[in-house]
Amino acid sequence: MKTHLDCIPCFFRQGLSAARMVTDDAEKQKGVLDAIATKIPEISADMTPPEMGITIYQAVHAASGLEDPYKSLKDHYNRLVLDLYSRLKANVQEAKDPLLMAIRYAIAGNIIDFGPQSSFDLEQEIAASPTRPFSIFDYENFRQALAETEEILYLGDNAGEIVFDKLLIETMNKPTTFVVRGKPIINDATRQDATFVGMDEVADVIDNGAGIPGTILKYCSSEFHGHYQKAKLIISKGQGNYESLSEENKPIFFMLKAKCPVVATHLNVPVGGVILKQAEMSLNNLSD
Amino acid sequence: MKTHLDCIPCFFRQGLSAARMVTDDAEKQKGVLDAIATKIPEISADMTPPEMGITIYQAVHAASGLEDPYKSLKDHYNRLVLDLYSRLKANVQEAKDPLLMAIRYAIAGNIIDFGPQSSFDLEQEIAASPTRPFSIFDYENFRQALAETEEILYLGDNAGEIVFDKLLIETMNKPTTFVVRGKPIINDATRQDATFVGMDEVADVIDNGAGIPGTILKYCSSEFHGHYQKAKLIISKGQGNYESLSEENKPIFFMLKAKCPVVATHLNVPVGGVILKQAEMSLNNLSD
Repeated sequence: MKTHLDCIPCFFRQGLSAARMVTDDAEKQKGVLDAIATKIPEISADMTPPEMGITIYQAVHAASGLEDPYKSLKDHYNRLVLDLYSRLKANVQEAKDPLLMAIRYAIAGNIIDFGPQSSFDLEQEIAASPTRPFSIFDYENFRQALAETEEILYLGDNAGEIVFDKLLIETMNKPTTFVVRGKPIINDATRQDATFVGMDEVADVIDNGAGIPGTILKYCSSEFHGHYQKAKLIISKGQGNYESLSEENKPIFFMLKAKCPVVATHLNVPVGGVILKQAEMSLNNLSD
Repeated sequence: MKTHLDCIPCFFRQGLSAARMVTDDAEKQKGVLDAIATKIPEISADMTPPEMGITIYQAVHAASGLEDPYKSLKDHYNRLVLDLYSRLKANVQEAKDPLLMAIRYAIAGNIIDFGPQSSFDLEQEIAASPTRPFSIFDYENFRQALAETEEILYLGDNAGEIVFDKLLIETMNKPTTFVVRGKPIINDATRQDATFVGMDEVADVIDNGAGIPGTILKYCSSEFHGHYQKAKLIISKGQGNYESLSEENKPIFFMLKAKCPVVATHLNVPVGGVILKQAEMSLNNLSD
């Protein structure tokens, strides 16, 4: 998905919101906006939004003077969702279709995102998720792909959200490699978060080598590429991963909430739409 | 009023919205955003938002290839409000307090503004205005100042809106100098608009010599300064004039709708608030 002109005002809104979360110094906040501004003329037609995220959040990190300014926020959401875990797990186990319920929760957890939005109501999102209609619902294809695969590559998104991912991984019950970001970036999950929530109890955890709020392949490590190239089933969580991988010719299922108007328009769904979407693959690739 | 950091994302939103109104060429639209971006690092602590308006709308005008890209839009709103004129005038004349009704309409007309917002409902604004509560209501002081003055300096804002201003000027019935912008900028009224709506029938029309969506004194002509310095009662219409003159130690009454969160916060009113506000003057100045 390419950067849309409507993303540009939003980069500044996001940068300002993020800067305010890490420093009260108005000059440093202005410095973040200046750093974004100097990159705007360089935005090219084929750049995805998460690529600009590098500029935004590097500037935010610099303004904070910290390597991981969202650390306490990430810990907070990891803990918060861990506290809900047994209740969510019981709901999944008692559901008529446990897989579907676990997917619903995993997408609900995608609301924990400080990029496109600065506030959200997690409790309400969880409460509404069991009955909320999907805007895109490629569930039958997903079930079939899951039945046929021997292993899953699971691209994680945010801290806190990964606890819901853990529940989905347990429910799918297939060997899974769970991918986190290579460096701290906003509230995206890193190895530290994966360890914190016990992800290694249910999956092999690797990082993608990059500090980007998405999965931009050219910045990812060769270890990640090794997994990505041979994967038969990829689950991609969240907007940033969707923005980076939407045009990929791979066996990907995107699970996300469409939180911004540009992503929602790209998916042809309303803002807030709940998405389980199979990537469009060419016939060539399908016959591989 | 100083530029707030929240104004910066909004400059891009405004620039994009304005660019889309004058050209369908995405590269030219991007060019407007690039032009705004290069100015962001130069924004200083004492700059008012309309000063950045110069950059935004010069870039928009350049992208359009036209000297006055909003001409047809301005004509449209001038005509639209002229068509309502006799009805509005009758309502004012039949009102218990015709001056107050004319002020209410003049502020309702301030909704015709393509800067802070890209859409509005003029009919609804007019219909609601006779009973809408004011957020700031320095009416008694205004009435007294009006009774005591021999002449009025009236700083206009947008095309279309100036028809409401004409009605207020007729209602006040004192010698009035009506000020328009010196050059086309967004949908702000120029001499051409004043002539179009027959403003010269009720006031002397001058321009301020500047093409800025506000009244930044350092850019205004000496003719304007002559009027401004000696004025005993100044009516300032709209956000842009308020943003430029809010700290002035002058006998100004600001009439506007607070359309953006930054202006509303500065005035300590809700967004959409109806404002009739006397400028705060120092005692020194009052005793002049």
